[in-house]
Amino acid sequence: MKSNNYDIIIIGGGASGLSAAIYSARGGMKTLLAEKLACGGQAAITYEIDNYPGMPDNPSGQELAARLEEHAKKFDVDFTAENVKSIENADGAVKTVKTRRNEYTAKAIIFATGATPKKLGIPGEAELTGSGISYCATCDGAFFKGKDVIVIGGGNTAFEDALYMAGIANHVFLLNRSERFRAVPKLVEKAKAASNITIYTNAVPQSFEGNGRLERVYLTKDGETGFITADGALVAIGISPYTELAKSIGVQTCDLGFIKTDMYLSSSIPGIYAAGDCRVTPLRQVITAAADGAVAASSAVNYCLSH
Amino acid sequence: MKSNNYDIIIIGGGASGLSAAIYSARGGMKTLLAEKLACGGQAAITYEIDNYPGMPDNPSGQELAARLEEHAKKFDVDFTAENVKSIENADGAVKTVKTRRNEYTAKAIIFATGATPKKLGIPGEAELTGSGISYCATCDGAFFKGKDVIVIGGGNTAFEDALYMAGIANHVFLLNRSERFRAVPKLVEKAKAASNITIYTNAVPQSFEGNGRLERVYLTKDGETGFITADGALVAIGISPYTELAKSIGVQTCDLGFIKTDMYLSSSIPGIYAAGDCRVTPLRQVITAAADGAVAASSAVNYCLSH
Repeated sequence: MKSNNYDIIIIGGGASGLSAAIYSARGGMKTLLAEKLACGGQAAITYEIDNYPGMPDNPSGQELAARLEEHAKKFDVDFTAENVKSIENADGAVKTVKTRRNEYTAKAIIFATGATPKKLGIPGEAELTGSGISYCATCDGAFFKGKDVIVIGGGNTAFEDALYMAGIANHVFLLNRSERFRAVPKLVEKAKAASNITIYTNAVPQSFEGNGRLERVYLTKDGETGFITADGALVAIGISPYTELAKSIGVQTCDLGFIKTDMYLSSSIPGIYAAGDCRVTPLRQVITAAADGAVAASSAVNYCLSH
Repeated sequence: MKSNNYDIIIIGGGASGLSAAIYSARGGMKTLLAEKLACGGQAAITYEIDNYPGMPDNPSGQELAARLEEHAKKFDVDFTAENVKSIENADGAVKTVKTRRNEYTAKAIIFATGATPKKLGIPGEAELTGSGISYCATCDGAFFKGKDVIVIGGGNTAFEDALYMAGIANHVFLLNRSERFRAVPKLVEKAKAASNITIYTNAVPQSFEGNGRLERVYLTKDGETGFITADGALVAIGISPYTELAKSIGVQTCDLGFIKTDMYLSSSIPGIYAAGDCRVTPLRQVITAAADGAVAASSAVNYCLSH
């Protein structure tokens, strides 16, 4: 009979969770990875990934996710397609992880629960995501070299994305809903000074249109309706982490809900770690998620061995 | 004529430097990578790498290094096979990087200069490195599943390695030069309590022997000579970072000489970043080096765009 007692339980099967599984199993730990959906996380729903270092063949997101999953499955890792409902005795030496049907124990837990970019929720957005619409300038900006792009948002990330795109694209239009910007003045000044950035205030996107690829963004500006022709649109209105479960057991998060960690990726609760998009981190990429999984698992292995 | 003025100069062509080059060039920055030797760093001299997530084919270190280099060369990056001798105006807006023959300028500099494990310098060590002798338990420990291994050293890393190997190997012998241990008492107690760890004090390794693969470690123990039969030896006597150049311009380092960084991998000097093995970090793996390159370059791109 399969035992339900593990050394390390990883919650989430994206790049960070799969990488953590590799490092946990290689470290000799009895390892369970719980992922309620298919493995692969945000990577799996990405069209093409040309910046996972060492993969110059530009795998599709699905292909990269499959390679990560295949890699984790080479090692002695148990996988379960269950949703973790609750964790008990989180600060104890033996923690209990509950799903609807099962109970598991673990000495250490790694949250690799990910995050998702906020959507505008307007017509055409879902259809053209990956075909001109992107939520990550660092990920996809290079695909718009010499083209015209729209950046939607008014915070620091939107302005950083606009400046980032200004160095790559032909022209950048930044659409901000209101008259005022949430971004720090320095970034706003830089964007205003850039010769190829046009800032529209009181500009609210209404729909995305295009024949298989993004061609136009319809918007209202000061109450009037119009459109901008563009090859790309970067939606930069925020990211939502999946950290409800972590918060429910008292793991400390930042104001936006991302899990706070130290250098070892330990959370505020001993034996509980966080890796990838769900934690406070300056960059959310497949490569950084994979590295986070390695760090969190190595720390969790050391924790298990010394407790 | 080729201009010598760059946005970002990366010093070092290992995994972190090559990854930084990808992220810098994708960010639209004019990028130079200076590597005095061949690219690939520590990865290139590793026999086999089975823990770079997403590469289940276990590439040789050389193959992985080649894939990283090929990837970086897909982008608009200038490479130069020069040794950086000095940096002037390090804290200025335009920094000058000098080699023996050339001068380059940059707005931002990324140190990706790496580190190297300390060697014992005894007979057989160089010959059998990668054939039983390893300097990294996290990297190579899994290759010794069910085998007998020796861990050499008496600090925290040596004891962590011994505990790590105890969960994987059949038996672990820890050799410590003196009567006392530098490791914290908790780790020493854990190791002493482990049923498959034997600790030898006053034990000094003299030579490694084996026919193509490690078979025996000769040592003196309390002045007498003998040998231990073992399939693997983990040398854990420290790591030396290549940070002389960084220190020469006033970049802050820890007591061991590793560069201190913040979450963005910025060093103590604005516009100067550190990535990979040369910085203070809890884990030194190819995957963490690659992620570091991505973070440092993304931060450097933002720095260049907003200054």
